[in-house]
Amino acid sequence: MGKGQLGVKPPQGQVSEWYLRNLQESQIFDNGPVTGTMIIRPYGYAIWEQIQHLMGEMIKDMGVSNAYFPLFIPENLLTKEQAHVAGFSPECAFVTEAGGKRLEERWVVRPTSETIICHAVAKWVKTYKDLPVLLNQWCSVVRTEKRTQPFLRTTEFLWQEGHCFFATQAEAEAFTLQALMMYQHFFRKVLAIPVLIGRKSASERFPGAVDTTCCEALMMSGKALQVATSHHLGQTFTDPEVFGITYRDVLQALQTAWYCSWGASTRMVAALFLTHGDQLGLVLPPQVAPTQAIIIPIFKKGDDRNSIIEACGRICADLKHAGVRVQVDASDNSPGWKFSQHEQRGVPLRLEIGPRDLESDSATGVRRDNGRKVIIPLGRLQLSVVALLADIQHVLLEQAQAAQDANTRSASSFEEMIEIIKDQRGFVRASWCGGAECEAKVKEEMGATNRCIPLEPDKDDPGSCVVCGRPAVNRPYWAKAY
Amino acid sequence: MGKGQLGVKPPQGQVSEWYLRNLQESQIFDNGPVTGTMIIRPYGYAIWEQIQHLMGEMIKDMGVSNAYFPLFIPENLLTKEQAHVAGFSPECAFVTEAGGKRLEERWVVRPTSETIICHAVAKWVKTYKDLPVLLNQWCSVVRTEKRTQPFLRTTEFLWQEGHCFFATQAEAEAFTLQALMMYQHFFRKVLAIPVLIGRKSASERFPGAVDTTCCEALMMSGKALQVATSHHLGQTFTDPEVFGITYRDVLQALQTAWYCSWGASTRMVAALFLTHGDQLGLVLPPQVAPTQAIIIPIFKKGDDRNSIIEACGRICADLKHAGVRVQVDASDNSPGWKFSQHEQRGVPLRLEIGPRDLESDSATGVRRDNGRKVIIPLGRLQLSVVALLADIQHVLLEQAQAAQDANTRSASSFEEMIEIIKDQRGFVRASWCGGAECEAKVKEEMGATNRCIPLEPDKDDPGSCVVCGRPAVNRPYWAKAY
Repeated sequence: MGKGQLGVKPPQGQVSEWYLRNLQESQIFDNGPVTGTMIIRPYGYAIWEQIQHLMGEMIKDMGVSNAYFPLFIPENLLTKEQAHVAGFSPECAFVTEAGGKRLEERWVVRPTSETIICHAVAKWVKTYKDLPVLLNQWCSVVRTEKRTQPFLRTTEFLWQEGHCFFATQAEAEAFTLQALMMYQHFFRKVLAIPVLIGRKSASERFPGAVDTTCCEALMMSGKALQVATSHHLGQTFTDPEVFGITYRDVLQALQTAWYCSWGASTRMVAALFLTHGDQLGLVLPPQVAPTQAIIIPIFKKGDDRNSIIEACGRICADLKHAGVRVQVDASDNSPGWKFSQHEQRGVPLRLEIGPRDLESDSATGVRRDNGRKVIIPLGRLQLSVVALLADIQHVLLEQAQAAQDANTRSASSFEEMIEIIKDQRGFVRASWCGGAECEAKVKEEMGATNRCIPLEPDKDDPGSCVVCGRPAVNRPYWAKAY
Repeated sequence: MGKGQLGVKPPQGQVSEWYLRNLQESQIFDNGPVTGTMIIRPYGYAIWEQIQHLMGEMIKDMGVSNAYFPLFIPENLLTKEQAHVAGFSPECAFVTEAGGKRLEERWVVRPTSETIICHAVAKWVKTYKDLPVLLNQWCSVVRTEKRTQPFLRTTEFLWQEGHCFFATQAEAEAFTLQALMMYQHFFRKVLAIPVLIGRKSASERFPGAVDTTCCEALMMSGKALQVATSHHLGQTFTDPEVFGITYRDVLQALQTAWYCSWGASTRMVAALFLTHGDQLGLVLPPQVAPTQAIIIPIFKKGDDRNSIIEACGRICADLKHAGVRVQVDASDNSPGWKFSQHEQRGVPLRLEIGPRDLESDSATGVRRDNGRKVIIPLGRLQLSVVALLADIQHVLLEQAQAAQDANTRSASSFEEMIEIIKDQRGFVRASWCGGAECEAKVKEEMGATNRCIPLEPDKDDPGSCVVCGRPAVNRPYWAKAY
């Protein structure tokens, strides 16, 4: 612990090791006994609860209501939509025995809830007055994975999944983008993570989707991470031959509803760590930090311990009244030990209170993001700390934006693309003919995938495909990815 | 809808039918496609979120932290504690296939999390400094059930489960009771449900517990409902031969930790409905009502519609600022239809705003609990509504307490007990020798169970057992139960 320099990222080749070590030592996670499952310990779960709380507000502001659908899906429901079952069933876990008996039909442990939700909504929607149906659930889902990493890819993970049904295609398409924009806003504002947004190519689409849009972030390893997706599902699931979500319109004619779904998972927690961390450990943006400020009493032999502890308590109470999530670390450990512990856990602001601080009626603040010391007059305590936390939040976003900008390059040839990607230097924007073979060749030769195609078409001619030389139709972002 | 009288309970024999019909019509629940599973629709889930929020605060105030443990438990963990596996395995669901392969060891879908949590905590606890460990999780659990009823008994249900580990037996025993008291307080204050608290007899204990304490409530059907349990698990699970949660004490001697667990589920939602409902539908205590006040604009032909709608919006905004969960129902339906709909959904307070109300600068309030009309001057709107809601909350608790008192009787003979219980008239307090045979005889002859043994021993001599006539050791509450 404490080996390394504040503000300096671990070398790219050591990011995985840095990640695991810091999650363990900060008591964020532990391995579950079933391979690939994860225990989220209280400090990690508190971060997730902040995310749930703040994203939950944004979801409710979109007019979406929370609900809960069962964990188990009868196999016949999953198999109703062909592309969907083909995409998911290799990863599914099946319950075959329950209540002491072998089941006649297997239950799928939900890998995602499109099928069970469509099955129910079909019963609820009768006329145009019953639309839109705007649902969301926070739950866990199961997709067995061969190579797992905590928060990044686990056999069971926590997420929210939005499922929204509309009378018209235009509404469903608009809502798909509205959810995408909500995510983008959330990532910037709350997680201080800038994201690229765009469409997935056909090969990367969600099984059953007409169109998959996504948010892509860049991690300190130089790899991209898909942090949220929003799918326009058209009438694939609602079709009368599939789940049959149909309604009578104003003229009593039978119509088929339009559908979109959107989700973001505990992977967001991974994105936080892999964006803001440094050699000393995690760095948490104040908006999601379970503890935003830690107060540490400082005293040597002979100092008036009680009056210092008392002052810490007073300062803590004042900051709580200002809405700051703050604690006093009054444990028996040495100040130095406490400093590095809270640094590793990513607490945004440390407040040191010693006899000299009290004499000058001030506290010494130390920022986690840049290590700068700030003398805070106790008379302006609340305002100063609130302003410091806002500034830390802001600076973290700016730094992450700068890192993304510096690692987003253009390539005009296949060789140039290889050159950039072999060093894992982030996103490469390069022209593409739209062909699946060219996409496959990029993957094969450099292990990079088409992360997303920008929503707005280029003003300039996209030129020619860097793989085959034919005329390009767009200029996607390519990268190695988690 | 609207058949029946406000404040009058449905006849005992019709409670089941009343329950199902009102849950369906109020869009609280729907059946899931796997038998015995339940969809919690937005209005039902909003009630659960209020419960989560308010109980969540109380749990955090006990110093307990939320965490998340995996859904899947390898079978060998479940079988480590003999009594525990014997109690649960007949109800368990097993995953036997995942990722396209047959598993070598089955995964149990958690029926409760003692085993997986003990397995992890054993790794985390090394010395007395690591104790206590105070954990809670909100999740879903699976126990297959033959006869299911929404919220009362479902194959999958949502709950919170607290798991707390201590250095000493005294601490674990005290915390078992502290959790029980938290529940009792929550039921009275938030759900307006009075509960009896006590100990379970040996035959009703949680599998693996040394002592199970519980909260028992009385439903309008005359049946008892166990709404929360808190178990002292002693060293059954922590034993070095079982999960081995051991620690070095101050003297470096190896000690075994003490353990308690406690839980309450979506059954609390059932208790709400089956305590406060009447012939018109649900009655929700303001503390958990998703909508505490519904504003209904009233106009006839020729009235100035716009100014009324505008006034409703103003009143709604004012009440929101006072912290009231309030909505305007501006739909096209008739006022009468709206009245009965919101009555059925149990909205505690209705505010009618018509031209005459506006002329006199007032609103007409109608209470869901007793149907009384109250003229509310708009100048005192916020205070009046907040006070009305507090009074409704209070009156609902008083009514429920009166119903419980009126249906809690003493019996001094077996015949007297039969006489009371055959009509399903609530709790019967009757002396017991403590013998399992006498307990079994009561169950057999009258279908009633020993609900709980009061924590405080009687001041008077408990007399003789109503079954066998031998000296009694206590006077439990007996009842037919869900």
